[in-house]
Amino acid sequence: MPLANANWNYPTTIWFGNGRIAELPAACAQLGITRPLLVTDHALVELDPARISREVLDRSGLAYQLYSDVKGNPTDDNVEGGVDCYRQNRCDGVIALGGGSALDAGKAIALMAGQSRPLWDFIDVDDNWTRADASAIAPIIAIPTTAGTGSEVGRAAVILDQAAPGKKIIFHPRMLPGIIISDPQLSLGLPANITAWTGIDALVHAIEAYCAPGFHPMADAIAIEAIRMITQYLPIAVADGSNLEARGQMLVAASMGATAFQKGLGSIHSVAHQLGALYDIQHGLANAILLPYGLRQNADAIEDRMAHLCLVLGIENPGSEAMIDYILSLREQLDIPNTLAQVGIDDSRAGDIGRMALADPSTPTNARVVSAGDLEKLFRAAVHGDMDSLDDTP
Amino acid sequence: MPLANANWNYPTTIWFGNGRIAELPAACAQLGITRPLLVTDHALVELDPARISREVLDRSGLAYQLYSDVKGNPTDDNVEGGVDCYRQNRCDGVIALGGGSALDAGKAIALMAGQSRPLWDFIDVDDNWTRADASAIAPIIAIPTTAGTGSEVGRAAVILDQAAPGKKIIFHPRMLPGIIISDPQLSLGLPANITAWTGIDALVHAIEAYCAPGFHPMADAIAIEAIRMITQYLPIAVADGSNLEARGQMLVAASMGATAFQKGLGSIHSVAHQLGALYDIQHGLANAILLPYGLRQNADAIEDRMAHLCLVLGIENPGSEAMIDYILSLREQLDIPNTLAQVGIDDSRAGDIGRMALADPSTPTNARVVSAGDLEKLFRAAVHGDMDSLDDTP
Repeated sequence: MPLANANWNYPTTIWFGNGRIAELPAACAQLGITRPLLVTDHALVELDPARISREVLDRSGLAYQLYSDVKGNPTDDNVEGGVDCYRQNRCDGVIALGGGSALDAGKAIALMAGQSRPLWDFIDVDDNWTRADASAIAPIIAIPTTAGTGSEVGRAAVILDQAAPGKKIIFHPRMLPGIIISDPQLSLGLPANITAWTGIDALVHAIEAYCAPGFHPMADAIAIEAIRMITQYLPIAVADGSNLEARGQMLVAASMGATAFQKGLGSIHSVAHQLGALYDIQHGLANAILLPYGLRQNADAIEDRMAHLCLVLGIENPGSEAMIDYILSLREQLDIPNTLAQVGIDDSRAGDIGRMALADPSTPTNARVVSAGDLEKLFRAAVHGDMDSLDDTP
Repeated sequence: MPLANANWNYPTTIWFGNGRIAELPAACAQLGITRPLLVTDHALVELDPARISREVLDRSGLAYQLYSDVKGNPTDDNVEGGVDCYRQNRCDGVIALGGGSALDAGKAIALMAGQSRPLWDFIDVDDNWTRADASAIAPIIAIPTTAGTGSEVGRAAVILDQAAPGKKIIFHPRMLPGIIISDPQLSLGLPANITAWTGIDALVHAIEAYCAPGFHPMADAIAIEAIRMITQYLPIAVADGSNLEARGQMLVAASMGATAFQKGLGSIHSVAHQLGALYDIQHGLANAILLPYGLRQNADAIEDRMAHLCLVLGIENPGSEAMIDYILSLREQLDIPNTLAQVGIDDSRAGDIGRMALADPSTPTNARVVSAGDLEKLFRAAVHGDMDSLDDTP
């Protein structure tokens, strides 16, 4: 890979370890938060991670406000509702607790808490983010409860624009949480299917980041190690959700996958984002189904990198084909469907999806240049399970 | 490696690429620096990297002040002189340009610029750093000209206490530079021997960090990839100093080695620090000579990790012995002496060195527990080239 100019930065303070949720009040103190808004989603609010976090806050005497109106694919309304709640209760910081949905919503609420411009003014295009009043962004503590999106180490939030409709990326460097509490015990209750889907999401982050063009050896390094950890520990975490070692390794690997993808993602995410917007399919599941098709379409461009991964993972006959076979077998082991048809998605909107995916921010960093037609073809192949249709892609 | 609690953070904004020194005024603007103190060492000030940087500053019209009274092993006097110069010229930020000496001195000057307490109050013990007035620490731009220490991504400075005498580590999280300009062209003029010594220093950082106990997969990942890059590109950079690809890869690998060693170092550094203090030997050269002896003494504790490195590097019969043989041959290729005796160091102070090394901050993170006697033995082995004397170490 020839050297080229690049600007790099790496994440933030991470407090990792079992039971470290108990240090949430200390994290608030360190960031100067005295009246946090606890943002989580409508499903999680009833479950252990939210219950435990609230108990910790209650015991500390911190006056916090709960906001749990966050959907699976969080919307602009969810963000607006959170900002209203934040302002009405004169909060001074955000605790974002949950999977990607709650973390993204929490980060967007923290961004918007003190802005006068509307949310869509901060879409991740050009240097839109410089429009924001950085000093008015609320400090953020992120507490991931799934090992998947890695939103806790990211500086962006994916929000559904209900008017368009479509998923949009909101970006600001200060949306990076100031402290992450990474507590494996909080992910123990995650069901096997969600564990599998979110885990493969992390794997796709790492693989697409590693394959993205550009000279970024720190991101490559982190991606390679995340892939090694996920292939080793995801099957264990799915088979035995109570295995804390596997939960912990996956939680870290997910943060690493997302750290790596500051380098960029690729066509799998480009298409998956559209499926989330059009069909409300769980993001990790969409990525998991698309993964081998995306690798096949990119095979020629990523041959060397797949060979290196095979070396590290101990896979024989190193190269793209061996890696695809390995992924297919891993995916089968995790009970992930082979086609989008199996989850009720047909190809009636294939043209739209190709066009929309081309405009997705992940597309320019795909390992090879792709057209709307290529992305449509990738989508159709994943609908029908037709791997061979991708062989002749130039 | 069992999971354990750990607090993590990762470095800062890095601007990497050939010719990016031209963006130095933009870096000043981004950090709000209008009157920088340019800190470099007495040798470098006459050479291209300093000349080019000063030309860039001159063209921009920024009123900067030069401070170049920094020794190879920077002293408390060097820091004090820099602080005086900073205050007299009412500077508002530091540009640290050079190898580890100038970068460490620059970072210490930035720390001390606005403090009322003396330097040694901030030695890296317990939470001494909290004594500092963080808001008074000057913003720092780091410009590495050697690919070695990686001080540019670190939050500490090694300063020689002339009264003691001994090397001491000054630490504050805000000593992490706000922006790093990583420009391979600035390292083109580095002579072959300095290239080799500093490059092996980076290799030792990565290896000791990778072998340090503790759960820190991001650091491990970065260390592994740095080792791969250094073994591939250091021989090229030494053989052909004008090879920009090799210079660039080494510059990044050095930053990665130092990023990784937030996890910790080990006995090689523990002893090398004492040799710097007592004999003023170049730090990288000391590490380079000590490296295979340190690996041999730790061999049992690091067998699995050495095996993984061998796998990644394509070395046959993976394990500690194969890795040591590989290092010996790499070192020979780089014209690095095999013993400390060859650079004029005898074992007359072996007892002192063992005792002093035991107290070094790198010792607690060595791969295995070591006593003063073990460290003395390591030093003696490196003086006499007696690898076999380390075999029976428990």
